[in-house]
Amino acid sequence: MSRIAIKSGGPAALPEWRAGFAAAAPGIEVIGWQETGAEQAEYALVWDPEPGRLAAMRNLRCVFGAGAGVDLITADPGFPRGVPLVRMAPPEAAQRMGEYIAWAALHLLRDGQRIARQEAARHWDEFHGRCASDLRVGVMGLGVMGLKAAEMLRGLGFAVSGWSRMRKSVPGMDCFAGDAELDAFLARTDLLVSLLPATEATRGILSAPLLAQLPRGAMLVNAGRGMHQRIDDILATLDSGQLSAAVLDVFETEPLPPDHPAWTHPRLTVTPHLASTPSRPERARFVAAQIARIERGEAPAPLWNPETGY
Amino acid sequence: MSRIAIKSGGPAALPEWRAGFAAAAPGIEVIGWQETGAEQAEYALVWDPEPGRLAAMRNLRCVFGAGAGVDLITADPGFPRGVPLVRMAPPEAAQRMGEYIAWAALHLLRDGQRIARQEAARHWDEFHGRCASDLRVGVMGLGVMGLKAAEMLRGLGFAVSGWSRMRKSVPGMDCFAGDAELDAFLARTDLLVSLLPATEATRGILSAPLLAQLPRGAMLVNAGRGMHQRIDDILATLDSGQLSAAVLDVFETEPLPPDHPAWTHPRLTVTPHLASTPSRPERARFVAAQIARIERGEAPAPLWNPETGY
Repeated sequence: MSRIAIKSGGPAALPEWRAGFAAAAPGIEVIGWQETGAEQAEYALVWDPEPGRLAAMRNLRCVFGAGAGVDLITADPGFPRGVPLVRMAPPEAAQRMGEYIAWAALHLLRDGQRIARQEAARHWDEFHGRCASDLRVGVMGLGVMGLKAAEMLRGLGFAVSGWSRMRKSVPGMDCFAGDAELDAFLARTDLLVSLLPATEATRGILSAPLLAQLPRGAMLVNAGRGMHQRIDDILATLDSGQLSAAVLDVFETEPLPPDHPAWTHPRLTVTPHLASTPSRPERARFVAAQIARIERGEAPAPLWNPETGY
Repeated sequence: MSRIAIKSGGPAALPEWRAGFAAAAPGIEVIGWQETGAEQAEYALVWDPEPGRLAAMRNLRCVFGAGAGVDLITADPGFPRGVPLVRMAPPEAAQRMGEYIAWAALHLLRDGQRIARQEAARHWDEFHGRCASDLRVGVMGLGVMGLKAAEMLRGLGFAVSGWSRMRKSVPGMDCFAGDAELDAFLARTDLLVSLLPATEATRGILSAPLLAQLPRGAMLVNAGRGMHQRIDDILATLDSGQLSAAVLDVFETEPLPPDHPAWTHPRLTVTPHLASTPSRPERARFVAAQIARIERGEAPAPLWNPETGY
């Protein structure tokens, strides 16, 4: 009998975690983060553990991040670097992210905000805009989620390119790489989609100077992490007309405070970090499968890479 | 020099039609419907011609519908049946329809109305719902538009089946056909998408008895024609909970009157017949290509079929 201590969603989420693991792996006992025995668990599933807490778990065989990004785990100076750290990557996470990006791109293409305003005013105006093939989408970050989103966008007819720090090769898609090719990528991008990993190199990358390199009137979707964006720059760039519209799912401070100007900007759509979170049963199934690999003597995946930071 | 008389969009649209034809086929002269010489034109491009008017055009070689449906043309008892009637089918029309259906399906899957309500209230609630693969979509009407929409929905991960009056065969997709298989099709459909042709057989088909055959809590998108739906039945079926949400792009009376209850129903999204109208330049290009076929002695396409009514 293995034990997994969980810090994700608080005590209220424990019944759902227990049900998820009971269905996926009846041999794994779920222990709440504050419950007796948590420090003796072999596995931990955490989003933002208190500094030093993981290092104190003497039986720890593997840490599982509760989300795709594990930066709030590795920020702990006492994080036990000898223990493997697995990022949350169930197949449903990329699927859900792709659905969200497809929704956001179509919402911007077909002007869902104007549709909603017209409906609220009971105003019938048969406006028409561009086709997907007229819109050049650029996906920043070509991990599992970026690649899935790019594939779905291409299926809808969008003209999609990609950019990543290290060069990726995707049949039929222009892939730009590194700082040297960032300008050329931005210059051909009418709709910028950010699905970058959270590293020191990407902190604040969605800033005024970068947005100024897009064609005038370009659009932005950020469903990566709030730390990628300078929200004041995005609001100013919307006000200047350099950006014509944006959809943001993530913010540096979450929940976004009720008095934040992002809520009410007329050309900004705010969604509450719901792009791709897999359900607890989906995540329990993924973690159970990785624990089964470990207990068969295989390596779990995907492992956090300290070199790249993701 | 051939001449085309146009009744679509009124006199205000004529400059755009003229520019579109000038670019696509400089040898075709555009004449407004009320202008001198319109009755002598060889071609007509019309949405809703006055009864008897087409029959009075002595030089008429071909009639082009301004939209995909030509029922307002064939409703004229004096419509000259010896003259070929071509439906509007530029490649952009199916592409735009597919984009709209993909948007509507994702809007329903991810609850775009709830996102908008939360945003208006500055309320952060990270709700999560189903994946596309959990949602069984059923497309009624497998013409060019229905097939394109089904293909795009499948690319997004939805579980798609189709229904049509005459059986179609689509690799990898369950295709139901005719009255005999309608019940089975509806019973497996969580999201019903109607892209039927406008014929006497489909008038009012989206009625309470049909909607009652869907699983409870199903959803509806109609981007076909307003004549397909009984709007009072749809509103009542939303109120009963048998339908949980709907997106309608078409209505029996358009523009939808400002006092119509459809505008304000909380689980109904109204869009103003903007799903797939190709732009005038796109339509001019399509018509010019068909005229070139005719003048080379070939048949234009797609021809209206009096047997099926579309």
